[in-house]
Amino acid sequence: MFSVDHFIPTRVVFGNGRLEELKSVALPGKKALLCVLRDGFIEPSGLMAQVIGLLAANGVEVVINDHVMPNPTREDVMKGVEIARREGCDFCVGLGGGSTIDTAKAVAIMLKNPGDLWEYANTGSGGRKEISSAAPVVAISTTAGTGTETDPYCVITNEKTGEKLDFAVDAIFPQISFIDPQITTSLPRHLTIYQGFDAFFHAAECYIVNQNKNKLVDMYGAESVRLVTKWLPAVAEDGKNEEARTNIMFAADVLSGYTQALINTTSHHIIGQCLGGLFPKLPHGASLIILAEAYYKKIKALVPDMLEQLGTIMGEPSVAGDVGQNFINGLVKMLDITGVRELPLSEYGMERGDFERVADIVVDDVGIDSVDIYELTKNDIIDILTQSYR
Amino acid sequence: MFSVDHFIPTRVVFGNGRLEELKSVALPGKKALLCVLRDGFIEPSGLMAQVIGLLAANGVEVVINDHVMPNPTREDVMKGVEIARREGCDFCVGLGGGSTIDTAKAVAIMLKNPGDLWEYANTGSGGRKEISSAAPVVAISTTAGTGTETDPYCVITNEKTGEKLDFAVDAIFPQISFIDPQITTSLPRHLTIYQGFDAFFHAAECYIVNQNKNKLVDMYGAESVRLVTKWLPAVAEDGKNEEARTNIMFAADVLSGYTQALINTTSHHIIGQCLGGLFPKLPHGASLIILAEAYYKKIKALVPDMLEQLGTIMGEPSVAGDVGQNFINGLVKMLDITGVRELPLSEYGMERGDFERVADIVVDDVGIDSVDIYELTKNDIIDILTQSYR
Repeated sequence: MFSVDHFIPTRVVFGNGRLEELKSVALPGKKALLCVLRDGFIEPSGLMAQVIGLLAANGVEVVINDHVMPNPTREDVMKGVEIARREGCDFCVGLGGGSTIDTAKAVAIMLKNPGDLWEYANTGSGGRKEISSAAPVVAISTTAGTGTETDPYCVITNEKTGEKLDFAVDAIFPQISFIDPQITTSLPRHLTIYQGFDAFFHAAECYIVNQNKNKLVDMYGAESVRLVTKWLPAVAEDGKNEEARTNIMFAADVLSGYTQALINTTSHHIIGQCLGGLFPKLPHGASLIILAEAYYKKIKALVPDMLEQLGTIMGEPSVAGDVGQNFINGLVKMLDITGVRELPLSEYGMERGDFERVADIVVDDVGIDSVDIYELTKNDIIDILTQSYR
Repeated sequence: MFSVDHFIPTRVVFGNGRLEELKSVALPGKKALLCVLRDGFIEPSGLMAQVIGLLAANGVEVVINDHVMPNPTREDVMKGVEIARREGCDFCVGLGGGSTIDTAKAVAIMLKNPGDLWEYANTGSGGRKEISSAAPVVAISTTAGTGTETDPYCVITNEKTGEKLDFAVDAIFPQISFIDPQITTSLPRHLTIYQGFDAFFHAAECYIVNQNKNKLVDMYGAESVRLVTKWLPAVAEDGKNEEARTNIMFAADVLSGYTQALINTTSHHIIGQCLGGLFPKLPHGASLIILAEAYYKKIKALVPDMLEQLGTIMGEPSVAGDVGQNFINGLVKMLDITGVRELPLSEYGMERGDFERVADIVVDDVGIDSVDIYELTKNDIIDILTQSYR
C-alpha cells in the first residue's frame, strides 16, 4: 500500500496582476530586507519601485540589498546579513528569480543563527551545524523556473571552494509567494527556455525518484511535465502569449516547486549544479539542457518504466521493444523546437580536461548515491559529460 | 487567465502503520487534551491506550476529554475547554472522526479566546467576534470522510437553537494529521459508506463551485471523485480490502480535505448540516446521500457542464441531448451498488411538516446565496426535501 507525506506551508498567490495584493495581505514583519539582483532589470523596469510602494502601503519599511548575483555566493549572502542586522530588518523579501529568492532565504537563515553560512551546509566542506530557525521569507517571483517560491531549499555557491550546495530547512518555505505571470512577459527568450526546462526537469526527476509511491508527487509532477511540454514551445515562439506564460509559471513555480518540496531531484541536477559552481556564467537551466540527452539515454536502461510513463505524459507514443525511448523522443523534440539542442559547454569556459574533476566532485564531495534510485559511476558521469560537450 | 490560491499548512503523515510515528515526530506541546468519542470504539479497541502510550514515549502528558458526541455540541466543547484550562493543556489531539477532531479544533479556539464558543460563530445566531488564534491541533483520523484532518473548519451544533454551524480560521488547520488506513479496517459497513459519500460530495461540490478556476481544486477534486467512484463499492463489499481502504482514506482525508481547504462546498452540504442539527441521530453522510438524487437532478439545468465533467471523471458516457445526465447516472449507480438509495428520513424523526422550517433555516438563517454559484429558492429546497423523503 502507498504512503503519502505532504507538507507545503507556503501561501501561494498566483495570477495575473495579483502582485497588487502585496499592499493588503498580512505580512510577517514591519521592516523588510528587499533582495534584488544587482544590475538586473528589476530597478530599470520600475518593478522595484512598485514593490517598495506596495510594501509601504502595507506599513512595511524597506531596506534594499543588491548583493545578489546569478549563482549567488556565500560572501554576498553574508553582506546581506550584515545589512539586515545593522538595519534591524525582521523579514526578507526576495524579488527576482532563483538567485534572488535563494539569497533572501540564506540571509533569513543567518538572521537566526550565529557565525558563517557555510557552517550550516550539510554536504561538501560544510560544517553540518543544525539550523534552529529562520527569519520569515516572502517571495516575489519574476521567473518561471526554480520552484524555490514553494520549496524549503536555497542553493548557494562557496566562492572559495567552487561548491554549489543546497541548504534545506522547513523554516525557509516562503510564508507567502506572489507568482504573477504578467511580470514574466518581458523575460528574454533564452532565459525563458532555460527556466522552462529547469521546471520540466524538476518535475521529471522527482517523478522518477518517487517511483509512483507518493501519489501527490505523481499528480504534481505529471501535470507539470504535461504543461511544460504543451506550453514551452508556444512561449518560446511568442513571449507575449499570456496563456502560455501563465501555464508555464504555474507549472514551474507551483507544481514543480511542490514536487521538490516533497522529494529530491536526481544526479542530473547535481551535475548541473556542479557545473554552475565551477563556471558561474553558465545559467542553471542551460547546464541541465546540455546534459539532458546524454543523461536520459544513460539512465534509460536503469529506470525504463519511469521514463516510459513520462513519455506517455508528454503525449509520445511507445516505441516497440524499447521501453522509455518515448521520453527521449519527446525530450529531443522539445530541445529541437526550442532551438537549444546544441548549446556549447565550451563557451562557458569548460574544457575537456575538466570532466574528471566534475565527476570527482559529483560522486565524492556532493554524493549522488543518497539521491538517485540507480547507481551512476564516475565513468558514467564522464561519459555523460563527453557526449554533452561541444 | 486563471488564478490559483493555495494554503494548506498541515503536515500529512498518511499510510498503513504510520500512527507509530506519533512517538517520534515533533509535537506542538507537552500536555495534550486528548478528545475521544464517549462510548465509542476507541477505548475498547485498545486504540486509546496505544495513542496514550505513543504520546508518553514522545514526552507528552495526556488528559482525556470524552465530552464528544456525534454532531458535537457547543455545550460539550465548553466542557472540554474547562478541563483543558483546569489541567493546563497546551495543545489538543482529536482521535476519531469528524465529530472528535472538530471538538478538538473548537476547544483549541476557546483556549485562546475568552467567553463562549457561540460568540465566535460567523452565521446564524453567532456573535461574529474575530478569532484571534487557537491552540495547536493534532488530528488522528479513524474514519475516511470528513476531510477535517486537512482543512481549517469545525462544525458544531448549538443545542439550544438547533443550529449546526461552521467555524473557519487558519489557526485550526491541524499542525500534523496522522491518517492511517489500518485503523479503518474495522469500521462498520454503513458508516464506511456514509463517510465515503461525504468525501465524494466534498470533492464534487467544490469542483462545481470552482468552475475550473483554481487548477489545484480541479486536480484534487477530480482525483478524489475518481478514487471514491472506483473504490467505494469495493470497500462496501469487503471492509478488509486494504487497497480499497487506503484509496478511500486518501481520497477522503487528504484530497477532499484539500478541496475544502481551498474552496467552499454547496448548499447540498448546508441542507445536510441543517438536517443533522435538527435531527442529531442522522449521520452527516446519510443526510447527504438522502438528498443527493433530488439535489443533483434539480441543479442539472443550472450547472450542466460541471456535472458533465464530473460524470466523465466517474467514467460515465455522455447522454445525447442531456448534458450532465452522465453524473446523475454515475451517482445513482453508486447509490444502488452500495445499497443506500432508499434511506428513510422518517426513521430519524423528520416529518413532512418540517420541510418548510428546514428551508427557512437554510435560506434565511444560514444563507446559501453566498456559497452557491446558482440560485435555489425556498421552494426548490422544499421540492428537494419532498422528493427525498421516505
